[in-house]
Amino acid sequence: MTNIHASASGGEAGALSWPRGFRAYTGHGGLRDQGDDISVVASDRPAVSAAMFTRSLFAGPAVVLSRAHAAGRDLRAVTTLAQNANVATGRQGEANAAEVVGRVAALLGIDDRHVLIGSTGVIGRPLPMDTIRAHFDAAAGRGPEAFGAGPLDVARAMMTTDTRPKTAVRAVGAARIVGVAKGVGMLEPDMATMLAYLFTDAELPADDLDTALRTAVDRSFHCLSVDTDTSTSDTVAVLANGAAGPVDLAEFTAALTDLCLDLTRQLASDGEGATKLLRVTVGRARDEAQARRIAKSVVNSPLVKTAVHGADPNWGRVVMAIGKNTEDRDRDITPDRVTVAFGGIEVYPEEPTPQTLDALTDAMRQSEVSITITLGLGTAEATVYGCDLSAGYVRVNAVYTT
Amino acid sequence: MTNIHASASGGEAGALSWPRGFRAYTGHGGLRDQGDDISVVASDRPAVSAAMFTRSLFAGPAVVLSRAHAAGRDLRAVTTLAQNANVATGRQGEANAAEVVGRVAALLGIDDRHVLIGSTGVIGRPLPMDTIRAHFDAAAGRGPEAFGAGPLDVARAMMTTDTRPKTAVRAVGAARIVGVAKGVGMLEPDMATMLAYLFTDAELPADDLDTALRTAVDRSFHCLSVDTDTSTSDTVAVLANGAAGPVDLAEFTAALTDLCLDLTRQLASDGEGATKLLRVTVGRARDEAQARRIAKSVVNSPLVKTAVHGADPNWGRVVMAIGKNTEDRDRDITPDRVTVAFGGIEVYPEEPTPQTLDALTDAMRQSEVSITITLGLGTAEATVYGCDLSAGYVRVNAVYTT
Repeated sequence: MTNIHASASGGEAGALSWPRGFRAYTGHGGLRDQGDDISVVASDRPAVSAAMFTRSLFAGPAVVLSRAHAAGRDLRAVTTLAQNANVATGRQGEANAAEVVGRVAALLGIDDRHVLIGSTGVIGRPLPMDTIRAHFDAAAGRGPEAFGAGPLDVARAMMTTDTRPKTAVRAVGAARIVGVAKGVGMLEPDMATMLAYLFTDAELPADDLDTALRTAVDRSFHCLSVDTDTSTSDTVAVLANGAAGPVDLAEFTAALTDLCLDLTRQLASDGEGATKLLRVTVGRARDEAQARRIAKSVVNSPLVKTAVHGADPNWGRVVMAIGKNTEDRDRDITPDRVTVAFGGIEVYPEEPTPQTLDALTDAMRQSEVSITITLGLGTAEATVYGCDLSAGYVRVNAVYTT
Repeated sequence: MTNIHASASGGEAGALSWPRGFRAYTGHGGLRDQGDDISVVASDRPAVSAAMFTRSLFAGPAVVLSRAHAAGRDLRAVTTLAQNANVATGRQGEANAAEVVGRVAALLGIDDRHVLIGSTGVIGRPLPMDTIRAHFDAAAGRGPEAFGAGPLDVARAMMTTDTRPKTAVRAVGAARIVGVAKGVGMLEPDMATMLAYLFTDAELPADDLDTALRTAVDRSFHCLSVDTDTSTSDTVAVLANGAAGPVDLAEFTAALTDLCLDLTRQLASDGEGATKLLRVTVGRARDEAQARRIAKSVVNSPLVKTAVHGADPNWGRVVMAIGKNTEDRDRDITPDRVTVAFGGIEVYPEEPTPQTLDALTDAMRQSEVSITITLGLGTAEATVYGCDLSAGYVRVNAVYTT
């Protein structure tokens, strides 16, 4: 695996291109006042695919339709409508999602069942089908030359309250994996995350691709929580068109995991109102599930999040958040075995010395704050990602209608 | 049961007195810069008692000691130290808690094991024992006449970031029940709540008192969540000294429950940064546990809380919060059976009409906002209490060290 760190803000961003055989276009379909809000990424040849979706009971028609199409493991295109989730919109919402898929398939000359559709934004409002239809009519008129958009254009067209487009790329042998993602709030992914699409020219069987995706998601998007709220539209999908030939599965899985973790960190640090990325690692746990349970309890604690916002190394709130996890299976955790460190500097049970206090203050003021906890019970470890809780989160969500 | 609504802000507040046989004092022990921070409430005769405590793994020495004393079911006095939780303070913290209990017992001329101690405030700082000792020396010098404090004085001496003292009173036959409570953040009680003490002159067996307390707590404090964070110091205790003679158990339980609910609502509406009390009722559930699970999911959703703060009847976020409850046992919930109403006005699936829209806007602007959900599965119902999420919550917790 070779790291090519071409994230949106990186120096190589301008050069970021699709893996061989993929192309994309973006356009304005009237979902927002201005700017591109519809995107399509497609493979010029058949591809194998794997996908995971929200477990929300209120999953929208885009998810329901995409889940059915993804079952064939041969998706070739992904289309996204931004600013409207098309959730809880009844039968008309289902018909609208199906019509958009049909339009995209016609544009590409492929069957509907090869198209995945994502929808993100406000819940409970009908799609503006008049302007969407006009958009697709115009796109059909432009033909293949419409497809000149790069990953950054697509990531930008997927944004809602995101402040930055999220992209990432990794190389595996002769192949590359390119990912685009969006999501800033309603963000505690469960089984998948808010719209992350991964495209690769690697050649590998659908079963292997599925296994690789599940491994990668479990170690990345599933370790993310901005606000404990799980979206109705979460979707993550990977398309592999084989244009670059076969790859080693272990290498591919490692690269895919690393890429997903890159996107996860981008999502966390752009969490609604976030000023800091928060990374919580729990080590010396009995098992990984316990480590993750405790880490999630800490990363989701509003009191820990506000303390991090205030640059306060408040270990009292950290031990509170560990202790409030009162499932019977976690009652082997005992206060006198627990240690807590901020930025690698232990604060409990050993308090910082005058010598380390400056370093601690400095660590709390960074744009990324790490909390490391050890339980003294075993050897398992887990890391989760989140962000601080600021007045900005309240502001954006008290006025914005999702 | 007779309702005597003498809450702190009510007109009768000035007249609120203890049940027969109880007395109290408050004083300044140097825990905060100024104002009373130590309180003692005691019965002048033996009493029976029942108590419940936090299930936090990091319960402090006050809880550990009180739990042992409460096991005797014959508590006669309750003392509270405000501004310092004395949690995670090691062996010295245990010795300090025991010393305070000893001082209170000596002052009252009773055995240590009849004293319950509560501690609330910052975690991880040693108690200022010098000023605390000086305080008790002075109190011992004053003798019985120190005991002139009323419930409102005690509730005030228990406050930390509370903006209002919380008291409530109910009558049962010839007896009365008086409650005092504190708590504004780190407030999702589990098995008990952040310091609520109930005093009654009713006469009833300890077993019955225990049953009544568990029933009352289950229907009140357990239905409260300000921020999902469970305190290390939660304690609720009831002392009954029998001075008013026997009471009907059912009547007593109803009065105690009603009183605890009164305190619960006071705690919720004074949640840190809160501008609105939020009441979520889930009806037509399969069973009460399901109703409560879904109601908690809604009342704790940061996106629902911020919408309520912005007076936005955002049912999309409510269905999101219902749907994110993805436990297998709740997968019988189906979107097309669910209804959602704000202030009694249905918003899903029937949208408000132009006629009801004004009433809806009005309902969202009240200081108490109710969300009513029906699941269409059965007949069970549950109500939980919380508050909105405002920039004030962030402010108070980004600067205040708990």
